[in-house]
Amino acid sequence: MRVEPPQLAHLEYLGDATKFAALIHALIPKCTLLENFSSEEVRLFAHFMRVYRGEPGMEIIREGDGGDFMLMILEGRVEVHKRDRWNAQQLLASVEAGRTLGEMSMIDGEPRFATCIATDQVVFAVLTRDAMANIILERPSLGAKILIKLVTMLSQRLRQTSGRLLQSMDKTLSFL
Amino acid sequence: MRVEPPQLAHLEYLGDATKFAALIHALIPKCTLLENFSSEEVRLFAHFMRVYRGEPGMEIIREGDGGDFMLMILEGRVEVHKRDRWNAQQLLASVEAGRTLGEMSMIDGEPRFATCIATDQVVFAVLTRDAMANIILERPSLGAKILIKLVTMLSQRLRQTSGRLLQSMDKTLSFL
Repeated sequence: MRVEPPQLAHLEYLGDATKFAALIHALIPKCTLLENFSSEEVRLFAHFMRVYRGEPGMEIIREGDGGDFMLMILEGRVEVHKRDRWNAQQLLASVEAGRTLGEMSMIDGEPRFATCIATDQVVFAVLTRDAMANIILERPSLGAKILIKLVTMLSQRLRQTSGRLLQSMDKTLSFL
Repeated sequence: MRVEPPQLAHLEYLGDATKFAALIHALIPKCTLLENFSSEEVRLFAHFMRVYRGEPGMEIIREGDGGDFMLMILEGRVEVHKRDRWNAQQLLASVEAGRTLGEMSMIDGEPRFATCIATDQVVFAVLTRDAMANIILERPSLGAKILIKLVTMLSQRLRQTSGRLLQSMDKTLSFL
């Protein structure tokens, strides 16, 4: 039985990611998570993911929602927005095929930090927390490889964000 | 043969963490990394760590240094400092037993983000990247548990830091 994340019910389900393995393999140079993956590892990993398609303008992830999955963009482009204190959507980033999104909520189960909107037709692979747990149980070395990649990616983002925070605080202080 | 991280050569080496297992176990309520660890898992984990003691005022980690290890404070207190753009040390945090430090460099091998200084006599356990790799190989389920904890911790810090960055940018904008 397929258990679909309810947050994805408005999107078109394209099935198991296994038949997208070649497309996923071609993304390796653009995808930090897949760095150093062999074809065999991509094929194994794909077996645990499911693919969806969204039309331009559709929300794929909504800020504040629950949702214990991450996604990897296979085709198309996605904008990342966050509400500011006047509740207006502010564009944080525009990302394309190879980029992963939603890792933090997949891991820690906290509400989504930002909203992701398809800017053109977007095809993406979804990895749920349950699927991640199954990878760790059934394919421990692949599981460890993915976890190490996630730790590395988050670590690098935390460095960048902390650096920007210090710069910004510095800038704020220089106004005082 | 013991291969000591050269950055720790000025500190007193107290041996394998196995004999500190009871002390480490007592830190569980204060230590996010050890959350939900059984006594057996603490004992196994301790086997892969080494313990050092530093005197008040000693640098344990220096900003900009290489260093592929993380540490867990077992006793004492450590201040975390970062140089500002005038090269002056700014206090970022003061942390105590149960807190882990240096996870980012352990994982991604990038230079240290901040300096950690013992404010009193500090005893801490060190986990090197090689030891982490051995845990993953020899004790895959413990390895996965530690990696999941690291991902969760970094994810939560990234949320907090991103939130503070947005607030700070907002504050900066409000000055313009």
